[in-house]
Amino acid sequence: MGQRTDVPPISWLMHKALSRPKLISLAAGFTDNSTLPVEISRKLLNDILRSSKTGQPALQYGVTAGAENLRQLTAKHLQKLDGGHDRAHSPEHVIITGGSQQLLYMTLEALCDEGDIVLVEDPTYFVFLSILQSRDIKARGVKLERDGVDLVHLEYVLERLKKSGDLHRVKALYLVTYFQNPTGATTSLAKKSAALKLLKKYERAAGHSIYLLEDAAYRELRFDHGADVPTALTLPGAKDRVIYTGTYSKPYAPGTRVGFGILPEPLFTTVERIKGNHDFGTANLLQQLVARALATGLYDRHVAKVQNNYARKARVMKSALAEHFPASVEIWESGGGLYFWARLPKGISAGMKSCVFQTALKNDVLYVPGELCYADDPSRAKPDNEMRISFGSANEENIRKGIERLGKVLKKSI
Amino acid sequence: MGQRTDVPPISWLMHKALSRPKLISLAAGFTDNSTLPVEISRKLLNDILRSSKTGQPALQYGVTAGAENLRQLTAKHLQKLDGGHDRAHSPEHVIITGGSQQLLYMTLEALCDEGDIVLVEDPTYFVFLSILQSRDIKARGVKLERDGVDLVHLEYVLERLKKSGDLHRVKALYLVTYFQNPTGATTSLAKKSAALKLLKKYERAAGHSIYLLEDAAYRELRFDHGADVPTALTLPGAKDRVIYTGTYSKPYAPGTRVGFGILPEPLFTTVERIKGNHDFGTANLLQQLVARALATGLYDRHVAKVQNNYARKARVMKSALAEHFPASVEIWESGGGLYFWARLPKGISAGMKSCVFQTALKNDVLYVPGELCYADDPSRAKPDNEMRISFGSANEENIRKGIERLGKVLKKSI
Repeated sequence: MGQRTDVPPISWLMHKALSRPKLISLAAGFTDNSTLPVEISRKLLNDILRSSKTGQPALQYGVTAGAENLRQLTAKHLQKLDGGHDRAHSPEHVIITGGSQQLLYMTLEALCDEGDIVLVEDPTYFVFLSILQSRDIKARGVKLERDGVDLVHLEYVLERLKKSGDLHRVKALYLVTYFQNPTGATTSLAKKSAALKLLKKYERAAGHSIYLLEDAAYRELRFDHGADVPTALTLPGAKDRVIYTGTYSKPYAPGTRVGFGILPEPLFTTVERIKGNHDFGTANLLQQLVARALATGLYDRHVAKVQNNYARKARVMKSALAEHFPASVEIWESGGGLYFWARLPKGISAGMKSCVFQTALKNDVLYVPGELCYADDPSRAKPDNEMRISFGSANEENIRKGIERLGKVLKKSI
Repeated sequence: MGQRTDVPPISWLMHKALSRPKLISLAAGFTDNSTLPVEISRKLLNDILRSSKTGQPALQYGVTAGAENLRQLTAKHLQKLDGGHDRAHSPEHVIITGGSQQLLYMTLEALCDEGDIVLVEDPTYFVFLSILQSRDIKARGVKLERDGVDLVHLEYVLERLKKSGDLHRVKALYLVTYFQNPTGATTSLAKKSAALKLLKKYERAAGHSIYLLEDAAYRELRFDHGADVPTALTLPGAKDRVIYTGTYSKPYAPGTRVGFGILPEPLFTTVERIKGNHDFGTANLLQQLVARALATGLYDRHVAKVQNNYARKARVMKSALAEHFPASVEIWESGGGLYFWARLPKGISAGMKSCVFQTALKNDVLYVPGELCYADDPSRAKPDNEMRISFGSANEENIRKGIERLGKVLKKSI
């Protein structure tokens, strides 16, 4: 009866972390406590609540799709990230949600029936897999390269689904396009474009639209301040086929849980109605906090500070990896986000039950086994020789110590 | 494909309200702007964000089930409302959600498959009906009396479902037990107890548990400060069968969207996992705001003020109703909440397409047609001669004017 939601392995990891006080967690995707905008938020909330004119609306119900000012500021913010491009960044298609997570959940509710199929990167964001599992939606993995999905493999997967008669169940391709969780990979615009064309090509055989669901949760956590890869929304033909989701949660503060989506019609209206049934709309007070941060420029200033902090911690982790990890471990380095991705030589398992993981735990260091980030896809075996290593929440000293401990474990095991 | 969510009629009503600036809305279930805790919230947020020790955790991710302090304060708060009773008010079974609405949504996800049946009051909270419709869950109406469901009719409905072979699809009875939306009715403890026993009696034939889902969203909006009816949680045998949901949104501030549920195992764990997939947990900053309001006693002081305000506005509406409404209209008066319920003589429609509704709209006054609050239940016709009239958001002058306008329309129609 009802949902059969499995125990998320991540709960187990978190529990482990809490039960060993000396443990250094390189597992959590938490952001860094020291960079949280405590002072800025206090100032902004004071400004909002100083007068009843702005205070009362902030404490009242709002509109389901989100506060008008935040929807407009969000569209403008994305236009800026996309170098001024404005084709698909209309405030009318912006919906404000409880983090981007809630947008992902509601989009799947709007798009998929039980037994439907969503194509995902191999590996991908494991909570997305958990949503799919809970809703009896199947995932099919597409190989991931350092600049995005392997296009040849994507076409191969689509072709196989066509031949097996399952193409009519395929509703979307889910891509985490910036500093991906877990690998750190960023999808090039050329790959976004080619993937979109491929999906389009198979729509006739599918009998319906196949959407590109672009998850840009880590987009603003970039280390340099250079040019950003534009979103798939900017591509020709994207208007009716690209769903974009982003968040203010990670770059600003997770404790505010404000994210957003941009959706084409008729999906936008369906998701808006689902949002009405979930919660009528995201807490107005938080929306006003984020809106004011954006409007005053304090958001941008804060994000620059956050970026510098993660860039520094990534450099610390990089040099520790170079010093302590065996040379046979392949490291994927990222230009942003919170993670390094490490691939052990074939045959060496880093999975939950592996000697590497258990020994690491005994030595008080925790990582996320890569196998957790692979879909249950019967058409291929799950690689188990990878690890996601995060520099998000640990401080510099613990990053160094943690990598040293992990390196010792690996040197004994490889 | 995916969810087929109908246009909620309430959106249409809201839209109407916005498009006629002179309109007096007695439709909205909004709370009163003038009572919103602007100054209190400013003080509390300042206190939280003054030091990084409390400010950082408030801006960081929390735990999915909710902040430990708020879960404990919530259990304690309910114990107090229930006159010290503590049997079923354990913090371990409290989950904090985005308003009580999100708890209702997730509970239905956890409990029901497509085609399942939930028994509801006739009439009931219309957004609950909208959730059921969007998830292809059927509703069966049980007659409502001024002190709760008609027990004879409840047994009749269960018996009929048993005979038609549909009892195995019945998962819950949904009751809005305090100052019900839309009628203002409060369910007596005797009726809660009898209903629980009746559900239990049919469990064997159903082949599974049938839950009593108690929605106490309006509980704290009582006009007197007298003794509260205890929740069904306090009844013997309730521990494994009662799901309770409440909210801080209405008594404190809707813009904070913090509600909660108390659920028995294994439902609690399922809902907690669903919550993890929805959004990882409600925004920590808002949880800390509510927790501090509760802990400092400012919450209680604020709620007393809100209660006095609504009590006064209810008195204003009551005397306006006595003055302007035809004597043939039956009025249900409530001891709390935001609504009066008016029943026109049989044969006079108050529905969306009725002359009464259209004339009222032309005369710039809006109410919620009672028919919207009835489930699509093929086993009975929907009454259409009722109206929900709210004193929630209008000020005293507009309450008087609105009722006067409505009275004139009714006098012409009856």
